[in-house]
Amino acid sequence: MLMVPKSRLGNPGLKIQYLLRVRHCCSKSPTDVKTTVVYPATEKHLQKYLHRDLRLVRETGDDYKNITLPHLESQSLSIQWVYNILDRKAEADRIVFENPDPSDGFVLIPDLKWNQQQLDDLYLIAICHRRDIKSLRDLTPEHLPLLRNILQEGQEAILQRYQVAGDRLRVYLHYLPSYYHLHVHFTALGFEAPGAGVERAHLLAEVIENLEQDPEHYGRRTLTFALRADDPLLALLQEAQRS
Amino acid sequence: MLMVPKSRLGNPGLKIQYLLRVRHCCSKSPTDVKTTVVYPATEKHLQKYLHRDLRLVRETGDDYKNITLPHLESQSLSIQWVYNILDRKAEADRIVFENPDPSDGFVLIPDLKWNQQQLDDLYLIAICHRRDIKSLRDLTPEHLPLLRNILQEGQEAILQRYQVAGDRLRVYLHYLPSYYHLHVHFTALGFEAPGAGVERAHLLAEVIENLEQDPEHYGRRTLTFALRADDPLLALLQEAQRS
Repeated sequence: MLMVPKSRLGNPGLKIQYLLRVRHCCSKSPTDVKTTVVYPATEKHLQKYLHRDLRLVRETGDDYKNITLPHLESQSLSIQWVYNILDRKAEADRIVFENPDPSDGFVLIPDLKWNQQQLDDLYLIAICHRRDIKSLRDLTPEHLPLLRNILQEGQEAILQRYQVAGDRLRVYLHYLPSYYHLHVHFTALGFEAPGAGVERAHLLAEVIENLEQDPEHYGRRTLTFALRADDPLLALLQEAQRS
Repeated sequence: MLMVPKSRLGNPGLKIQYLLRVRHCCSKSPTDVKTTVVYPATEKHLQKYLHRDLRLVRETGDDYKNITLPHLESQSLSIQWVYNILDRKAEADRIVFENPDPSDGFVLIPDLKWNQQQLDDLYLIAICHRRDIKSLRDLTPEHLPLLRNILQEGQEAILQRYQVAGDRLRVYLHYLPSYYHLHVHFTALGFEAPGAGVERAHLLAEVIENLEQDPEHYGRRTLTFALRADDPLLALLQEAQRS
């Protein structure tokens, strides 16, 4: 049986990966098959899973300000489900650790893709309490205490709860993220987690070091990411880069 | 039948992934199964494939100079098979593109993990002609013409030969690399290639930008990578970081 918190069901883009135990007709031993459930699935999801036709794009700091940010703001992307977790209106029993500081605190919660039955594919998410950081692009040295808390306290909490030490974890942000409220991924190092590739993941330790060296790093630097060939943002960025 | 160039057979650590077409006893249609052959397999290989017990380590610039580099130099790692390719003594018929410039040139060759039968898992390697660049750690602005050539001419050659455009390619270096002669990976963007994770891959476009912004970036910055728990280098780095 697959348990999904009710509060997430309205969230378009909900993805759950779980292990399905199957037995082949001519085999005595069962096999585990990793399966992804998307609910509710829109036309966009069907496209995404039927055919992964991707394009790499390089976004300068100006591209972000002039194209990506206005494009984001034109879409009404609800993150009410994130606020429900932060306000303990939903999934309060799933919280593994919380630093309640409104500025430098965060909530640590298992990702829905992890069934918590084994540590091989351990996957947790730290969601910051502050509501004014959309993504990596907004980060400045002002956020260093928050980022250091997430790295250090997140690793300690995972060691306490799951006996998995910090050097067995990959701790990173996505750019582009799948929702625009700052969050950090913690995955088992031996698990080739989807989205842990170099074209999407940014190690938190390196993000911290980049901000220490150059306060404007993430406002200014060119960032690389993949978009589906039919994503409207891709056409917008390509058009701007041609002109 | 699996064809492996003779010149590679002496190279410890040769890995070949290929598709095996299998037909299940109770199914009419065959299935392709991706298989890895390691030949010759040492005890170290057996350990690696039996159990991937990994640890993340952060190597400062000083750690590299004081620990990693002396450790590398203490091992006699032969890269004669690389020189044989560069000198066209082996695999000359496999070369897709060459810029023969001794300082800023390179050879582009399909990786042995790619069987060249389909583009989904396209995988090529650019190997530079210069023999004095061991890895990312040695790169300085002096190497920018070479790196720009690899990025631009490598993408053009792949477009010409395979009709795959540059924005459908992930172009990156490994750190740590599997052999210490500078080379660059070109893989299909939709293919989750082993070693394309954020803890090992460095996008060439970002490497170029890092060197443009700070000439000493790769000599000085802390780099993160995973080692097997029983790798002697791990113990050496951990010991240095404790003291």
